[in-house]
Amino acid sequence: MGYTVAVVGATGAVGQQMIKMLEESSLPISAIKLLASARSAGKILSFKGEDFVVEELTKAAFQGVDLALFSAGGNVSAKYAPYAVAAGAVVVDNTSYFRQHPAVPLVVPEVNAHALDTHQGLVACPNCSTIQMMIALEPIRQRWGLERIIVSTYQAVSGAGQSAIRETLAQYDQVINQGLSPKEVEASVLPSAGDKRHYPIAFNALPQIDRFTENDYTYEEMKMTNETKKIMEDDTIKVSATCVRIPVLSAHSESIYIETKAVATIEAVKEAIAQFPGAVLEDDTGVQRYPQAVNAVGSCATFVGRLRKDLDVEKGIHMWVVSDNLLKGAAWNSVQIAETLHERGLVQPAQDNLFDSSVSFD
Amino acid sequence: MGYTVAVVGATGAVGQQMIKMLEESSLPISAIKLLASARSAGKILSFKGEDFVVEELTKAAFQGVDLALFSAGGNVSAKYAPYAVAAGAVVVDNTSYFRQHPAVPLVVPEVNAHALDTHQGLVACPNCSTIQMMIALEPIRQRWGLERIIVSTYQAVSGAGQSAIRETLAQYDQVINQGLSPKEVEASVLPSAGDKRHYPIAFNALPQIDRFTENDYTYEEMKMTNETKKIMEDDTIKVSATCVRIPVLSAHSESIYIETKAVATIEAVKEAIAQFPGAVLEDDTGVQRYPQAVNAVGSCATFVGRLRKDLDVEKGIHMWVVSDNLLKGAAWNSVQIAETLHERGLVQPAQDNLFDSSVSFD
Repeated sequence: MGYTVAVVGATGAVGQQMIKMLEESSLPISAIKLLASARSAGKILSFKGEDFVVEELTKAAFQGVDLALFSAGGNVSAKYAPYAVAAGAVVVDNTSYFRQHPAVPLVVPEVNAHALDTHQGLVACPNCSTIQMMIALEPIRQRWGLERIIVSTYQAVSGAGQSAIRETLAQYDQVINQGLSPKEVEASVLPSAGDKRHYPIAFNALPQIDRFTENDYTYEEMKMTNETKKIMEDDTIKVSATCVRIPVLSAHSESIYIETKAVATIEAVKEAIAQFPGAVLEDDTGVQRYPQAVNAVGSCATFVGRLRKDLDVEKGIHMWVVSDNLLKGAAWNSVQIAETLHERGLVQPAQDNLFDSSVSFD
Repeated sequence: MGYTVAVVGATGAVGQQMIKMLEESSLPISAIKLLASARSAGKILSFKGEDFVVEELTKAAFQGVDLALFSAGGNVSAKYAPYAVAAGAVVVDNTSYFRQHPAVPLVVPEVNAHALDTHQGLVACPNCSTIQMMIALEPIRQRWGLERIIVSTYQAVSGAGQSAIRETLAQYDQVINQGLSPKEVEASVLPSAGDKRHYPIAFNALPQIDRFTENDYTYEEMKMTNETKKIMEDDTIKVSATCVRIPVLSAHSESIYIETKAVATIEAVKEAIAQFPGAVLEDDTGVQRYPQAVNAVGSCATFVGRLRKDLDVEKGIHMWVVSDNLLKGAAWNSVQIAETLHERGLVQPAQDNLFDSSVSFD
């Protein structure tokens, strides 16, 4: 007895981590279906020691599927998620396409698992940079309230997929082995594959992730603003972000400044974070202990450190938050949503299917 | 007719850039004296096409020197700057040792050149990360006032000297060519040569620059706070910093949030920055134009972009500021101070020598 689980985008950077997380998951799985584009169909991937042929994603591919994890880009989710839901599957979508839809729960299980209860067939997994911020801030919000958030990110290239990882490594080869200056290396993916201009990331920092919106913030920055309000169910929290790509392969770091509603001591804040599920306090300046990207890779936890009061603002607190963007930031949070749906008895065709509604996603 | 100029720490990362900046400087130079530790003495360096032997730094080395540029560490300045001043030289010190002394002007020429007028033989060059922030913010402060600053830095390894550059390149060789994971590479310099533990910087981000102070901020972070107040001559400006080392070879980037005293439009702020000496506005999201570390290397300018209003706070503004930490952040600002001293007729033995005072620096 178990679920038939589909992974859409199985050959991608996140898809491969989803398979790994499903292998380690407590979810009862009786069958797995690995789906990808026609280009990747036919590849062999292993799941729990058994080989599986990657199948082409089609509208008919979801017959018999109970749970479908999507991570193949917003357009793919837009087009195929409705067919998965119509076939009776519950979709956990890791793309940004449905996140702001009012009928779609946007869930970090440690923060707002209750939002799953009213799902209509589709649940969205938040953006990687938002998720780790939520894990660090929810224990503070619960006890002292949150007035505002100012965040500057230090994001890894794997967030832009395998082509970005390949491009980064190729650029380092060009600098370290071929003697090119960091300015001269070839770039065709970052900062955003869908945008017009491409810049080097090796030995560089790019203050652009995703494309720009009309207000001069990027979509990535606006995701952090809008998703925070939705997950914390509070539109009054002020959130402004600066999202920056740096030459790290995996694990995002974030310099976060918050103002709480009530005054908190740093000791109490540290204690609240240490006790919060999914959060690990790494904070001891006496022994130079603080979160680091290279140490976070492979872990499902979110690491929090460098906690200190603002020098002038009594309710101001600074911190440094690091997590593996492919795991808690994507694959693990998606699988964790699936586990939570199972625990709550919610892996079943939605009574009011989202796609029966009048809202169009075309 | 010209000055005899000494460079102390001539073989270091900043010292070599000082020599280059002096070569291009308008300063009348009749003789140059390249000083370094006994270990580096005897090396040959070129100045304006002529070879010079690096001499050992001794107490007697400043005989006949008019201008002495120090960049060989705080301890070296502490010990030898008094001898240079006593010999009649004006010292421009690039270390942090004297920066907070009330009788020592701390100068970014575009911002507070007037502070040079009362020098007592020694002028301090601010910290690299402070200088570029001052260039970006002074045009805003002048017109709208500054209430507070929250800054997160993305600092290059060259700020920690040549040993940090060598270590970084060696770590990339270990990852790219020897197949080590970024976690396994050898580290013995960063985050701070003077601290106990050392961590990898390749494919990592380290939220520690310099050692930690008792308030859990690092010295680097406190430099940004204290130096800003001194340079802008306003102790009421609130400044809190998070200083982070990232794997960039040269040029620091900074994500800066400010609140102005008066409401400013972004268009007017852009115009004020574009017109400010030393600042270059690079800001057009329509064509993905923003400052980048790899483009700033080799330039004496400070590049400012990503200017936008905070999403919720009317007087809040975000920006992205990039400059070559070895040039405007150190060597160029030091040489520019020397040029400004010359233009103001201030390259002469101080009337009230700082080191005749009762203050002890031992």
